[in-house]
Amino acid sequence: MSGRDDDSGGGPLLPAADRQRLRDFYAYLRQQAALLAGYPVAQDFDYDELKPLLDYSLNNVGDPFSGSTCKIDSREFEREALEFWARQMRAPAGDWWGYVTNGGTEGNLYGLYLARELHPQGIVYYSQHTHYSVAKSLHFLNMRNIMIRSQPNGEMDYADLRETLKVNRDVPPIIFANIGTTMTEARDDLGEINSILDELAVPKRYIHSDAAMCGAIAPFLDRRPRFDFADGADSIAISGHKFIGSPMPCGIVLARRSHVNRIASAIAYIGNLDTTVTGSRNGHTPMFMWYAVKRFGEPGFRERVQRSLALAERAVRSLKAAGIDAWRNPDAITVVFPEVSQALQHRRQLATAYGISHVIVMPHMDEPYIDALVAEIAADLENRR
Amino acid sequence: MSGRDDDSGGGPLLPAADRQRLRDFYAYLRQQAALLAGYPVAQDFDYDELKPLLDYSLNNVGDPFSGSTCKIDSREFEREALEFWARQMRAPAGDWWGYVTNGGTEGNLYGLYLARELHPQGIVYYSQHTHYSVAKSLHFLNMRNIMIRSQPNGEMDYADLRETLKVNRDVPPIIFANIGTTMTEARDDLGEINSILDELAVPKRYIHSDAAMCGAIAPFLDRRPRFDFADGADSIAISGHKFIGSPMPCGIVLARRSHVNRIASAIAYIGNLDTTVTGSRNGHTPMFMWYAVKRFGEPGFRERVQRSLALAERAVRSLKAAGIDAWRNPDAITVVFPEVSQALQHRRQLATAYGISHVIVMPHMDEPYIDALVAEIAADLENRR
Repeated sequence: MSGRDDDSGGGPLLPAADRQRLRDFYAYLRQQAALLAGYPVAQDFDYDELKPLLDYSLNNVGDPFSGSTCKIDSREFEREALEFWARQMRAPAGDWWGYVTNGGTEGNLYGLYLARELHPQGIVYYSQHTHYSVAKSLHFLNMRNIMIRSQPNGEMDYADLRETLKVNRDVPPIIFANIGTTMTEARDDLGEINSILDELAVPKRYIHSDAAMCGAIAPFLDRRPRFDFADGADSIAISGHKFIGSPMPCGIVLARRSHVNRIASAIAYIGNLDTTVTGSRNGHTPMFMWYAVKRFGEPGFRERVQRSLALAERAVRSLKAAGIDAWRNPDAITVVFPEVSQALQHRRQLATAYGISHVIVMPHMDEPYIDALVAEIAADLENRR
Repeated sequence: MSGRDDDSGGGPLLPAADRQRLRDFYAYLRQQAALLAGYPVAQDFDYDELKPLLDYSLNNVGDPFSGSTCKIDSREFEREALEFWARQMRAPAGDWWGYVTNGGTEGNLYGLYLARELHPQGIVYYSQHTHYSVAKSLHFLNMRNIMIRSQPNGEMDYADLRETLKVNRDVPPIIFANIGTTMTEARDDLGEINSILDELAVPKRYIHSDAAMCGAIAPFLDRRPRFDFADGADSIAISGHKFIGSPMPCGIVLARRSHVNRIASAIAYIGNLDTTVTGSRNGHTPMFMWYAVKRFGEPGFRERVQRSLALAERAVRSLKAAGIDAWRNPDAITVVFPEVSQALQHRRQLATAYGISHVIVMPHMDEPYIDALVAEIAADLENRR
């Protein structure tokens, strides 16, 4: 903050050896960032204009919609970013609330927490291919839960959901829907889920959409998936460091305000109703979210989605042409193929599980990048035959 | 990341009006940061050398001591920062574990979680003046808990603790100890607490030290308080954005490794045992923690503590000389005085509760700063008489 004027005196603050380590680290990062192809990390961001903010200790403690005696914050910018995403998620006007989280996991934890408070006896239903952090959160929150089978593409098996719900009709269901699974970017369909719940005449229900992966993609697809508030979600979590782009993990959680109000508790100390998970909150991540919204806007996001989809289709076609059993879910930027060697998994940082590996096409990639990557994968799988 | 080369083309990325808002925001922050005196926010940091890191999306997903296929991380630096603080906390050699959290709340949540897993039937004891986030975490984790009276200085009332433990001897106690309360920087004494537990012949116990406030101060005091692993703590949470200094909330949680191992669960996806709360983890905050350790080292931290203590003593003496009933706990940098006007609370961002306000003396302050602040407080309280 004021540090640079006060005490640095212009001289280096670190011992020479440590400064050298930093330089080496930068070189390493440059190299690894260029190779990274298996995690959903958009790299077309540019937050140079926000770097001066690192001179300040920003803390958006508590609720973004309340004031606080602690004024070194970015709540005003945070609210604007939230408003943009609430609109994209078709949140009910005047009945939504949210905040910028430390990532998808916190957003999911928050959604599950809300669900538990509303339905203390509820059972959580989530599919087999759900991110591992969800089981951890359920254990944390001490919630009853049942795992539902996944279809081969990674989507929830609705027949299994129906059968399972049928024998638990006495207990409110809490559906944890994946809007983009980790390995195959499969999306559970809130339309299907709600039909089943209606058919079984379930009066009380809660649906949380884990849109960590697809929350910033799905609103911009020509064939819009059924995943948002208008489709029946009670809360939605989106990641900020995936498709939106952020130097550090962050995310956005949105929920119906009427739900949130029921769990709010008055806090004297910070002079506001604190309904967030963490209390002290990062004030920099909301700035990244704000900047992305102002820079891209709806047209920009739509263009990035279209570009990534086209490249994903190119990757699938090229891999198939090379005789590889590659595929992707409809409108997905995740390209799936048989497990590659450990060497290539490491070199290209390709997440691998259930006998498959994947590439996730991100907006900073282009045709030459994809073509080179496809060639590497094809050569690797050729060697393994 | 590669964004600047790829698509900015040198032109501005934001609309002119938004760029102006950023400039206004910087001016506002400069002003507010200089006025802020009531929250423990060290402002003598200077992370200019780390700003280039904002070009990269760092993610220390999972355990800092394991590898991962995701290689854009700062785990190596994180481990070094952890080692420094483990040494300061006198962690048992070879039997400690930890990670850089998103703040004190996450560290406390983690400690309580560990305690719950080890003692599912345990009762949590915590004093009246405990931070409000703890009640929230206990509710989250669904843990039985009993609030203990505080002494007038904010420290736990040990007599009340003894009486309360006496009637619950059938259930393992989980002691949540404050090492620096929010309002008066009171420290619960692990020596006293352990004597009581020994006296009552309690065989199973867990002690978590919430050292969010004093964790980075207490090890450097001449009269070292009893709060750390050698004093019987099972886990300790420290804040990074308070005395250490960080542009964003972060912290360090440390725990006995034997405890952590008992709750670890194998995760296929990221190829590591994930025992953290969040999964995806900020890779920038560990860099701030590393930088502070390398820049200050033990002598630097000791010097910052001594300087702040001397200034706190100066503030108490000056306020008293002005006829104000000011005081501080032994070796505390928090200066307590009667509640000031709302106008001054807002202007100087002075947290106020229980009829008292406080100033927290931080290493970026100096004698002229303290003298000017004391004059403002004295004038304000004079007007209120």
